[in-house]
Amino acid sequence: VLEAIRAKLPAAPAGEVWIGDDTAVVAPPQCSLLITVDTVVEGVHADLSLVGLDDLGWRAVTTAVSDVAAMGGRPDWLLVSVAAPPSTDMEALYEGIAGAAELLGVAVVGGDLSTGAQVMVAVTVGGHVRDGGSPVLRSGAAAGDSLIVTGPLGAAAAGLRLLKARGPDGSGSDEKGSDRTGLGDIGAGLIAAHTRPVARLEEGEAARLSGATAMIDLSDGIASDIRRIAEASSVGVRISSVPVAGGATEDEAICGGDDYELLFTAPDAQEVMRAFETAGLRRPWVIGECTKDPAELSFAGRPLKDCGWEHPF
Amino acid sequence: VLEAIRAKLPAAPAGEVWIGDDTAVVAPPQCSLLITVDTVVEGVHADLSLVGLDDLGWRAVTTAVSDVAAMGGRPDWLLVSVAAPPSTDMEALYEGIAGAAELLGVAVVGGDLSTGAQVMVAVTVGGHVRDGGSPVLRSGAAAGDSLIVTGPLGAAAAGLRLLKARGPDGSGSDEKGSDRTGLGDIGAGLIAAHTRPVARLEEGEAARLSGATAMIDLSDGIASDIRRIAEASSVGVRISSVPVAGGATEDEAICGGDDYELLFTAPDAQEVMRAFETAGLRRPWVIGECTKDPAELSFAGRPLKDCGWEHPF
Repeated sequence: VLEAIRAKLPAAPAGEVWIGDDTAVVAPPQCSLLITVDTVVEGVHADLSLVGLDDLGWRAVTTAVSDVAAMGGRPDWLLVSVAAPPSTDMEALYEGIAGAAELLGVAVVGGDLSTGAQVMVAVTVGGHVRDGGSPVLRSGAAAGDSLIVTGPLGAAAAGLRLLKARGPDGSGSDEKGSDRTGLGDIGAGLIAAHTRPVARLEEGEAARLSGATAMIDLSDGIASDIRRIAEASSVGVRISSVPVAGGATEDEAICGGDDYELLFTAPDAQEVMRAFETAGLRRPWVIGECTKDPAELSFAGRPLKDCGWEHPF
Repeated sequence: VLEAIRAKLPAAPAGEVWIGDDTAVVAPPQCSLLITVDTVVEGVHADLSLVGLDDLGWRAVTTAVSDVAAMGGRPDWLLVSVAAPPSTDMEALYEGIAGAAELLGVAVVGGDLSTGAQVMVAVTVGGHVRDGGSPVLRSGAAAGDSLIVTGPLGAAAAGLRLLKARGPDGSGSDEKGSDRTGLGDIGAGLIAAHTRPVARLEEGEAARLSGATAMIDLSDGIASDIRRIAEASSVGVRISSVPVAGGATEDEAICGGDDYELLFTAPDAQEVMRAFETAGLRRPWVIGECTKDPAELSFAGRPLKDCGWEHPF
């Protein structure tokens, strides 16, 4: 199994040691090291009756790398710890892990493998901010800063809804491979948003370079994640509207997690638009502004709904 | 729960960000970065009817940091990913995590928390080799090098045997807190070797500084771990004898894992002895030598037993 896994992963360059010794040995960044770990658990973060093992592996990599994107940084390496029942199709799992890592331009340099009752993938990512820049924390927003998101929201939640409607055996569809949702390309896109999310690395860097003062990735839903910026920065937030992904409901856009779009604050929204355009990226959406009163959490003039992913502890 | 966990852990110094943002931000080493992840799973690596949640947390930190010791390096930071049933006593778990981290001089700078069917702790450790030295890989042993271990073996396996004999409810003992093993201080020491193992950081550094050519930590048992050095270095190994911990059997010393003593090879055993003495460390044991024939794996003139921790995949 280890050999099959290694075959899916790129080899170490000269001077580095990746899989196969007590630790991996990699070159350090010149500037600060960004490090984080994220864990995806079968039945908690991924329903294996609806998505594949490859999708679970893909998600584990995206969710970890997305945290580096939310600092305005770039990922340098991954360590992947897998626990799973012995019967698990490890090749499928690592297909997803290797695919996401390749797409995001980062290498798996080590990891470990244990038995466990559930499939569980903990991905550690190390990264850095390019050109000696400073990472964008959650705590730098100021009253008057614009609130900006990098894309429409709710697609992943809508995709999960479509997968659930189709059922574990795909019984909601006519035949395998045909349109399973009745929504055509839009439905397929929503499902892909749930099964194959991507981390917004280019967008995070463009936000940092255009003056972002605070940033977070939308993994738990904007209603929940925006509170973290408000709390860390001691500002209020006044949201006028949010862009809703085609086929998703407003509720899914506000409460649904797993989109991995970035939410950031910046004093000069025009500068942000120019920077994204120059970088060849989609124009982000200004959704509101930061206010002085930390008690203000409003959406279209009403209190912001208290919803989103419930952390268990 | 997060607040209770944070209260157990040290705070970040100025210029670094630890728990509370999308990623931790830490200073990078000047030289190569050593990184590894190790996972401890309830029922696989730790039997919670015999050991405490604090012991499981302690072990997860030790087993990860021990890999850095086996490179001749020092740990700089830990990321701790925990999955556990919601009823789990997180404070007890983090007591053990924080206790081992403090003893080994390393800080928990981040992590995450999920629900799961079993308690599972994945610890990522980052470290470096001091003074610009090179890490000791598994692949540098040469024929003629001495085989050296840093301490007697089998203590952890013997401790587990005593715990099993005592039974889940401690029924083998007279009363709580009394001698539970019939072996007095030796029994208590063996149990502690199983429940509270330590990583040999000083010893790993002394080995590196005195010319170690290959090194590994004995987590799976010497019969199994020594093969990894032999394979990676393309040498044979001829073991004359191994030091057996008091109260342990020779079988436990050869096949038992979890001692976390270091096994290394070096061309000049006298130089090694001097270096350990100068560092105020216990004299290590020369147990044999590396030979030219990669097919040779012998112990006291007979083929080395094929035993030790069985990896599940």
